[in-house]
Amino acid sequence: MTMTYDMPAFYDGLVSNGLILPSGVPGVFGRGAMYERVIAGLNHALDELAKDDGYDVINHPPVLPRKLLEKVNYLESFPHLCGSIHSFMGNGLEALRLAEKAHAGEPWGDMLVQSDVVMSPAACYSIYPLFKGQLPEGGRTIGVNNWVYRHEPSAEPTRMMAFRMREFVRLAGVDEVVPWREMWLNRFKALFEALQLPAHAEVASDPFFGRAGKMMAASQIEQKLKFELMVPINSLESPTALVSFNYHQTKFGETFEILQANGELAHTACIGIGMERITMGLFKHLGFDPRQWPESVRQRLWIHGQV
Amino acid sequence: MTMTYDMPAFYDGLVSNGLILPSGVPGVFGRGAMYERVIAGLNHALDELAKDDGYDVINHPPVLPRKLLEKVNYLESFPHLCGSIHSFMGNGLEALRLAEKAHAGEPWGDMLVQSDVVMSPAACYSIYPLFKGQLPEGGRTIGVNNWVYRHEPSAEPTRMMAFRMREFVRLAGVDEVVPWREMWLNRFKALFEALQLPAHAEVASDPFFGRAGKMMAASQIEQKLKFELMVPINSLESPTALVSFNYHQTKFGETFEILQANGELAHTACIGIGMERITMGLFKHLGFDPRQWPESVRQRLWIHGQV
Repeated sequence: MTMTYDMPAFYDGLVSNGLILPSGVPGVFGRGAMYERVIAGLNHALDELAKDDGYDVINHPPVLPRKLLEKVNYLESFPHLCGSIHSFMGNGLEALRLAEKAHAGEPWGDMLVQSDVVMSPAACYSIYPLFKGQLPEGGRTIGVNNWVYRHEPSAEPTRMMAFRMREFVRLAGVDEVVPWREMWLNRFKALFEALQLPAHAEVASDPFFGRAGKMMAASQIEQKLKFELMVPINSLESPTALVSFNYHQTKFGETFEILQANGELAHTACIGIGMERITMGLFKHLGFDPRQWPESVRQRLWIHGQV
Repeated sequence: MTMTYDMPAFYDGLVSNGLILPSGVPGVFGRGAMYERVIAGLNHALDELAKDDGYDVINHPPVLPRKLLEKVNYLESFPHLCGSIHSFMGNGLEALRLAEKAHAGEPWGDMLVQSDVVMSPAACYSIYPLFKGQLPEGGRTIGVNNWVYRHEPSAEPTRMMAFRMREFVRLAGVDEVVPWREMWLNRFKALFEALQLPAHAEVASDPFFGRAGKMMAASQIEQKLKFELMVPINSLESPTALVSFNYHQTKFGETFEILQANGELAHTACIGIGMERITMGLFKHLGFDPRQWPESVRQRLWIHGQV
């Protein structure tokens, strides 16, 4: 059977099967029971993959301190993706005007004030400040499972504004961090084969903004700092990145003063796992009903009986 | 043994035991492995409680459409709690200025524009618009498990800005909705007894804003529209609401044009379950190490062996 690609038809199938429930805003939707069951199954498969890694779980809410976003210079690279949380800090009379405006459908954003928190655009940012100082011998490995946010409304079902990103983060020396990233790339190649997802790896770059961003992207590609595992979902020509394998050199080590046990700056890497995109990939390639998926896939995802 | 209440000491204990990891902003923190293990155990216990209820799972991201917040008149009642997401929609030169400002520690919020989404302040709001039209005979029951946000930075460990709220939502006739709420109150009284949490129920009101809010609160109390199960955590005198049992009459039925099978306006109720607050309550009353909790509690929360 040859897979055909028709993005609107795929989106409609997700909706008509109760897997996603549109909210009226592109990139924001509810998730039905079976969709959530696949997410849980993926988490189970990842727990299994990493069970002997000795990692520590640290999960964060979907927000982080504004100062942290400023510190990693996020706005230099991705100003177009940020989400800043603004709140009302006025008095009773102002509150009345605010409610009136909102009720009348008039803009009310200018009555709010930027708060101390922003949407978390990547699951690992909250981790680095926790490790200021010296790492133990062999470094640390952290597991993270957060909601992240990027302001990019889109009709693509795989491009959400809010989505779950699980990450594994390694903080250590270059000789530990780089082979660890390679190991995870191989783990995911094998996992995707077992899940019957047709994936290929590519050297990739982040979606840097503007003209200067083009140079940053070229440099990132030249140094092979980012790999992505791509699976066609919306179209065959433009496959979707499901997992990214990122080596940050000493960028976060410098910014957050993280040192190896030997006193040198720590190197870091992270594996960014797009939980929702993998789920979408499974629905695209194996069909909308997990009860009909191949038994080997179901076992891997811990989907038993009638689910 | 008499329980003593010392909020700073309790907070310090949560931190020194690796259960929470401060971010620098009050009300925003990371969660360690054991904290997350208790959350998972609570979810398991709730799955068990509701397993014969025939409810449908619909989970949402931590954001919802701004128009939905306007439609439920949230800003009339709780303007002080809202979080609106603002994003950058400018050109390359403006992006440079934005990055410069952020880098220099200057305010940059006025360079952003209010977007189409806001933080979700309650887990159930996203559900009602999905049920416009006629409900089936017997109505519907929905299970929801979302991150929600309220702008109320606080030193109280139990008052977070972002937190997980699981909810069960009932849409049906008054004769189904009101006894259902009562049933859940009784279920939680029994669950909290099994978990050894000293709880009592109170007629309660929402934290309405300002002078008009006082009247709304008084009316809510008079009509017994809201009950809360309270457990002392930060102090004995001011116990913390862990679960709320809310009857909305036909408020959401009217707003979202939801009808019963007989054509009358639907009544709705929701059970708002503060997952993080129950977890905090367990650490307060049973100690910081779930491996030392009574076996009956551990079984109920599915905490086995060394966890």
